[in-house]
Amino acid sequence: MSSAVARVRAAYDRIAAVRRPELWIGLRPQEDAEAEARGIDARRAAGDALPLAGTVLAVKGNIDVAGLPTTAGCPSFGRLPERDAPAVAALRAAGATVLGTTNMDQFATGLVGTRSPYGAVHSATDADRVAGGSSSGSAVAVALGIADLALGTDTAGSGRVPAAFNGVVGVKPTRGLVPTEGVVPACASLDCVSVFARTLPEARRAVALLAGPAAPARRPGPWRVAVASAAALGELAPGWQEAYEAACARLAAAGARLRTLDLTPFTEAAALLYEGAFVAERYAAVGAFVESGAADLDPTVAGIVTAARDVPAYRLFADRQRLAALHARAMTELGDADALLLPTAPEHPTLAQVAADPVGVNARLGRFTNSTNLLDLCAVAVPAGEVGGLPFGVMLLGRAHCDERVADVAALLEPPHRVAVVGAHLSGQPLNHQLVALGARLAATTATAPAYRLYALATEPPKPGLVRAAGGARVEAEVWELPASALGALTAAVPPPMALGGVELADGTWLPGFLCTPGALDGARDITAHGGWRAYLASAGR
Amino acid sequence: MSSAVARVRAAYDRIAAVRRPELWIGLRPQEDAEAEARGIDARRAAGDALPLAGTVLAVKGNIDVAGLPTTAGCPSFGRLPERDAPAVAALRAAGATVLGTTNMDQFATGLVGTRSPYGAVHSATDADRVAGGSSSGSAVAVALGIADLALGTDTAGSGRVPAAFNGVVGVKPTRGLVPTEGVVPACASLDCVSVFARTLPEARRAVALLAGPAAPARRPGPWRVAVASAAALGELAPGWQEAYEAACARLAAAGARLRTLDLTPFTEAAALLYEGAFVAERYAAVGAFVESGAADLDPTVAGIVTAARDVPAYRLFADRQRLAALHARAMTELGDADALLLPTAPEHPTLAQVAADPVGVNARLGRFTNSTNLLDLCAVAVPAGEVGGLPFGVMLLGRAHCDERVADVAALLEPPHRVAVVGAHLSGQPLNHQLVALGARLAATTATAPAYRLYALATEPPKPGLVRAAGGARVEAEVWELPASALGALTAAVPPPMALGGVELADGTWLPGFLCTPGALDGARDITAHGGWRAYLASAGR
Repeated sequence: MSSAVARVRAAYDRIAAVRRPELWIGLRPQEDAEAEARGIDARRAAGDALPLAGTVLAVKGNIDVAGLPTTAGCPSFGRLPERDAPAVAALRAAGATVLGTTNMDQFATGLVGTRSPYGAVHSATDADRVAGGSSSGSAVAVALGIADLALGTDTAGSGRVPAAFNGVVGVKPTRGLVPTEGVVPACASLDCVSVFARTLPEARRAVALLAGPAAPARRPGPWRVAVASAAALGELAPGWQEAYEAACARLAAAGARLRTLDLTPFTEAAALLYEGAFVAERYAAVGAFVESGAADLDPTVAGIVTAARDVPAYRLFADRQRLAALHARAMTELGDADALLLPTAPEHPTLAQVAADPVGVNARLGRFTNSTNLLDLCAVAVPAGEVGGLPFGVMLLGRAHCDERVADVAALLEPPHRVAVVGAHLSGQPLNHQLVALGARLAATTATAPAYRLYALATEPPKPGLVRAAGGARVEAEVWELPASALGALTAAVPPPMALGGVELADGTWLPGFLCTPGALDGARDITAHGGWRAYLASAGR
Repeated sequence: MSSAVARVRAAYDRIAAVRRPELWIGLRPQEDAEAEARGIDARRAAGDALPLAGTVLAVKGNIDVAGLPTTAGCPSFGRLPERDAPAVAALRAAGATVLGTTNMDQFATGLVGTRSPYGAVHSATDADRVAGGSSSGSAVAVALGIADLALGTDTAGSGRVPAAFNGVVGVKPTRGLVPTEGVVPACASLDCVSVFARTLPEARRAVALLAGPAAPARRPGPWRVAVASAAALGELAPGWQEAYEAACARLAAAGARLRTLDLTPFTEAAALLYEGAFVAERYAAVGAFVESGAADLDPTVAGIVTAARDVPAYRLFADRQRLAALHARAMTELGDADALLLPTAPEHPTLAQVAADPVGVNARLGRFTNSTNLLDLCAVAVPAGEVGGLPFGVMLLGRAHCDERVADVAALLEPPHRVAVVGAHLSGQPLNHQLVALGARLAATTATAPAYRLYALATEPPKPGLVRAAGGARVEAEVWELPASALGALTAAVPPPMALGGVELADGTWLPGFLCTPGALDGARDITAHGGWRAYLASAGR
């Protein structure tokens, strides 16, 4: 594990490299973050258990970080908190180092990431497309590899839409599971603190630190997953329906039992969030401030909040009654399903499209996410491939407090890892069973780039040592595909002097592969000329 | 047990006798009720278990009774339900016979009982004082002995204030425990169906039939009761503070441990109900109808409902947040107390006082009751003596789902029963220990009215038989006071040929006392001349 200081330095290098200053509202001075990281390293050296040591964290700008202004995307609204919000404190206590606070749709009112006086945030991979919001900066900071983890918030989808648009994982735990103290409320009764990470296991580990022990998992058996018909999903971006169906097929291939439900109560509840009276909770949160007419108010956000002033309370009661009926119907539709699979959003708009119709485009984006908190569901948004070179994301929704179950289903969709093997893990070789036991399958028979030398190490039994070196050659290799959760297990099982690291293949791609550590070559024999481990063994009569 | 038919006839006789037509919105034709009662009697004769057979029930006019209009106090709003509300159906299924639907403050908006086009309801005992509301007719029908049980509803105190003003018991179960289907909503999220009866055991039996199995009781030990200081209670009617303190003293004498709490969160939450945004739920329920301007709208109710139209939803969110904070404080104050004892109302206004200031007086009446449902408490209102010849009532409040516990504490306040004994239960006689074991104490040594003859029955051991007869004389008697719950136990333990029935005492009052059944006198010896059982025993050398 790299040191916390090294990780922080790498993060600031990356911050400098990507030139995306609009991601940040309050970026910490590098020396502050490094000083904190030095403390982490010292504590770890002293034996402290710090599960997030060496992890860097970005925090959405509506969540208190001691000493950084909490502006919620509106500088004149800012406060300077003396204490971390409990969610931040929990991750810091586990060893994470905070890089700073991130840009967002002002007052967390938006799913676009453009409603901010700190600048519109575009997606991690396409400068013309929005990042999604409201947790725009947090999602992009993770997607660009700046931060390992980021905190967001999610009232209407703010922790999931930007995950989908930037190809990262977004977990929105059950309402109330993670404390919202120290968070500027959007709709206080619905707000959730959410987590972004590049992989689901990383996100789950952070949620476990935030939310405490999870509810017990359900009894074993095939996962039951509800899905929606094309008609129910309505208009999606070109290719997205097919991508959604591919995700359905992957779940089915992984053993899940799929069943189509009636999506109506979910989409009708979604419409209630902004079209109904619930929006008035936003006025309750920041209405008095917005009415003050500060110059740095986003005009779209200010318009939404101000209009919410005039929503009558009796409509709220009526909407609550309607919501209760929709909730009952939704739960009936969900039935015994462990999760409901949906596209996270119906389209990925450009900045220009949002600018042309800021309210209309935003409203469309929440078609699938808006009802989640109203219906008291938990959610996990995960990448599910690409469409037209842009990330496509789906989410799994489940009943309150079924967070673990929903994440287990989402894990079935994680992209497999690939690993390059050149020696004892090759098909038919003595350690190949390790791969098979982890659920791996042979994806390709190939060779390394012509840049390696192969050694027979002085180990018992003899193992191959692959070394990138001048004057190298091609070495026979196999590519194996592992379930995403298995690569870690494989890594953990690698005995010295072996190691896993980047290996360049014949086609120029890099994959994790078996290398060896310095010193392993003492007494080793260069067998590069054989062209591979099998050929060497054959020549040696083994 | 009297037959259901006989009980129904007695009820209609009483309805005729009291001349209070304003109690009823939909009084059933007597022949209908009798026909239903005949069915009950037939089923009971056939062996059906009908725990409420022979019980007559009045139903508040906002609760559906099949075939009677549900008007909620507004004739033009009426609907003619085809089905009983579940609460009505449950009591009917247990054998209760419905007499009709009762008058109420229109749309259950009021604590006075005067806001009704069917006429203002005055109290059972004082034609100048209000009955309290909104369940006015139900409470008075029970108080006047017309109905044994009555259903009310309680949002702000409607099931308790009229109990207090008419000297009956009112139980408001925990929110959601009794279904509110088939009830015209006042504030749908707060409304509870409540029960009136003359005694707490009768009310509890009905609640058990309505709410299903009760939560388990707490571990044994002295009851812990929170009480309020005189300063916290504020201005009460003359003598009411003393009456409240007497109730506190009775609880303490019964072994309860009293502790004073800070009433502030309870009274502040109470003020939120009408002064805050929650009133808008009334507009959600009946606002559209009220806006139609029907001629039979009560002007005060219509004014309150119409004004609620303009309450903004953001205030509701703010009030909910404030309520959550008050709830937390209230629960802290309640601590480990089993119940909080409070006066049910602070005063008992006259009809004239209400007419002069209909909103102000009404608001004052809810000072102690308004917060109960907002804070998710359960409540039992019981009579606690009289002040100036009018009933004084207190209530016990407790945490949600502690209904049984709260009722157990309230039972300590039930007025003791008195029983007249003339034989083996006299002090020093062989069966006196039964009374002592039941917690009874000797209240008076006296004699019967000069209207009885006393016999020594041919039983072993010999027992006295008291018979009201022409040519009777005074017979030595003692009056014993029993806890209210003990008289039933005593009655159940009376062996044949003995019986408990009305005995007239020397001062002209009637009390339950030991009599004997017909046939017991076969072979008995008239010992009236001895003047009493002890004198006879002494003369007989026993």
